[in-house]
Amino acid sequence: MKTLKYFQDYYSPQHSICFGCGSDNSSGLRIKSFWEGEESVCRFMPQPEHTAFPGIVYGGLIASLIDCHSIAAAIAAAYRSEGREMDTLPPIMYVTANLNVSYLKPTPMNTELVLRARIREVKARKTVVICSLFAGEQETAKAEVIAVRMPQL
Amino acid sequence: MKTLKYFQDYYSPQHSICFGCGSDNSSGLRIKSFWEGEESVCRFMPQPEHTAFPGIVYGGLIASLIDCHSIAAAIAAAYRSEGREMDTLPPIMYVTANLNVSYLKPTPMNTELVLRARIREVKARKTVVICSLFAGEQETAKAEVIAVRMPQL
Repeated sequence: MKTLKYFQDYYSPQHSICFGCGSDNSSGLRIKSFWEGEESVCRFMPQPEHTAFPGIVYGGLIASLIDCHSIAAAIAAAYRSEGREMDTLPPIMYVTANLNVSYLKPTPMNTELVLRARIREVKARKTVVICSLFAGEQETAKAEVIAVRMPQL
Repeated sequence: MKTLKYFQDYYSPQHSICFGCGSDNSSGLRIKSFWEGEESVCRFMPQPEHTAFPGIVYGGLIASLIDCHSIAAAIAAAYRSEGREMDTLPPIMYVTANLNVSYLKPTPMNTELVLRARIREVKARKTVVICSLFAGEQETAKAEVIAVRMPQL
């Protein structure tokens, strides 16, 4: 029986120290992303310190979640389009060129956040990801992320 | 003799719990912003956990610093344009409507970061802030932040 692995479980040791998504960063957010059909999904529970005002989630946390989750989606989509599993070599790596977040309404604390990312466009070196953040049924933030593929080392 | 106070030293108790700029959030970044002529400036030393890859600062931290520093600039500029000190009532408060960060090059760890924000445009309810992040002499990220003034409670 195959255990569900998240995109981040395949990251290299160098990538696994990332504050947002690295499983080896014990102070970090350690987000986990997975496919749900054409959408890449991440669930995250804000911690008490992740606040902006009383009861409202900090916008910088939202930007951080969107950044790492969208990059994970770009990476996973690249493996998928090449018909490769994520544990095959050479590793595919993307970094953020632009992060554009619109805060639509306040995001409440004490609610699990769900990020849903879709690939809008793929070019040779650039992937455009659209990512929405939901608190319950409410979409509270929406973003476009331009991810750039790193040359193979 | 007057001691230098930072913009964040004037924030209300509600705002002082913010992860990015609240002096009461002991887990947070506790950034401090001040005027240098027409520029609002903030200096920040990334901590070891604020990493993306070895030697490179996490983009989500950069977005967080830019977000809180730009909002601080919008708030301070509003007091200034009204000819008011920041400890006068009623308090002026802005929140982020849009955060658009371009990552120009990798930001190195072990270097003090300097954020420099300028007011591009002020309307009745909206202030547009341009913010650059420097590591040494290098501008490694540039952003536009749309700040929206909160109605007075």
